[in-house]
Amino acid sequence: MEVILQKTNLILVEPSGSLNIGSVARLCENFGIKELRLVTPRCDPNNDEARRMALKGKKLLDKAKEFSCLLDAIADCPRVVATAGRIDHGTIPLCSPEEAIKWSIETSKKSSIALVFGREDRGLTNQELLLAQKVITIQTSKNYKSLNLSHAVAIVLHELQRCEAQRSTNNQEVIDAEDPATPKQINDCLNDTEALLLKIGFLYKHTTKARMSKIRALLQRAKVRPEEVSLIRGVLRQMRWAIEKQNY
Amino acid sequence: MEVILQKTNLILVEPSGSLNIGSVARLCENFGIKELRLVTPRCDPNNDEARRMALKGKKLLDKAKEFSCLLDAIADCPRVVATAGRIDHGTIPLCSPEEAIKWSIETSKKSSIALVFGREDRGLTNQELLLAQKVITIQTSKNYKSLNLSHAVAIVLHELQRCEAQRSTNNQEVIDAEDPATPKQINDCLNDTEALLLKIGFLYKHTTKARMSKIRALLQRAKVRPEEVSLIRGVLRQMRWAIEKQNY
Repeated sequence: MEVILQKTNLILVEPSGSLNIGSVARLCENFGIKELRLVTPRCDPNNDEARRMALKGKKLLDKAKEFSCLLDAIADCPRVVATAGRIDHGTIPLCSPEEAIKWSIETSKKSSIALVFGREDRGLTNQELLLAQKVITIQTSKNYKSLNLSHAVAIVLHELQRCEAQRSTNNQEVIDAEDPATPKQINDCLNDTEALLLKIGFLYKHTTKARMSKIRALLQRAKVRPEEVSLIRGVLRQMRWAIEKQNY
Repeated sequence: MEVILQKTNLILVEPSGSLNIGSVARLCENFGIKELRLVTPRCDPNNDEARRMALKGKKLLDKAKEFSCLLDAIADCPRVVATAGRIDHGTIPLCSPEEAIKWSIETSKKSSIALVFGREDRGLTNQELLLAQKVITIQTSKNYKSLNLSHAVAIVLHELQRCEAQRSTNNQEVIDAEDPATPKQINDCLNDTEALLLKIGFLYKHTTKARMSKIRALLQRAKVRPEEVSLIRGVLRQMRWAIEKQNY
């Protein structure tokens, strides 16, 4: 059980409430999470309020790493699960905590898992959601869907604990599923693609963002593998070579 | 789905943090809980801190009912689920949130469900736990088991939502299980038993509490039915009559 949690990183994107950051640190300690990572926090994650709420989670608060963007914060995590309060964000299909968590733990590999939570007021942007292979929505009453950040974290960590315990109890064979490519590999590949597509005039400045988002969504839905990313980059290289050769 | 939640009451026993009470009110609104009930709160459940955390849960805070003891707070709820942070409390076996919640919703009757949460520092007493048929323990890391009150509430309400949605999706037949007797019926019966057992000298002042707890635990584990309570009281009445007749 503890194995999965010990390789799970919890990421908060631009949290603005110190009470929330402290509460989340306590939860991370409650569930034995490996690391708390903060992307440009909008408040002091180590002020009195945060430390008061963290209790024994203080040590996670002390060693929490800060990042300037989500991509950097998840760079070493091939499996990324994000959360959305919205009903539908149009590109990656939403799923239940159970479905996303079961997918995130279906590997015996040592690679890290990332659980990503957005801003208290606006959640994650579409661009940020596209960095995850699975996006969770927590079912609530239709009348009031907005959960407090730390409550959403409590529910997702409980699901992680529950799904992992269930797998152990059922003595289910660990499905040794291939990990997808890392966010960094995917991003480099997409940057490479974008540059080439701009060069050949397939993309224009004003269409780039929307079109590239569609390609990214496709790769994420496919849970693209490292060797497939290499394949794509090989194709790109070859095309670039062919184009440049022609121009001489 | 909403049906089960609309007949669920959430009970906090002697909560001492207004931030917690406010957070729980927000969660109740998030999950469409019918009523928030407070047993002798140790702080003002309507102060600024509570209202600030409650957000749209303010209306539940406004109409929250206060009680002087847990028994009164659950008097109308035949199905009572309590929570314990402890590993084992010796009398009623502990179970997972999933097991307790599945049992609590296995009825199509309109009778209310009670979800009971204890004090931030000490939880529920053994006597209070004995008022429930099912006692939940939430699995956490062995190193730091103490969950924040509102996080425990978030996890249990999410389980309620999840189990009920699962039942609907699977189109499972509603098991029309008989509701147990109400806490009031059980308590009256036990008081009656105690009085008689003292009268006949089976109980002494100093052994009463421990012995009566054992009888209560048995009835709770059996999920004693209303007609069985009537049967027991009939037996008691008859015995009392026989004893008194003999004394004349």
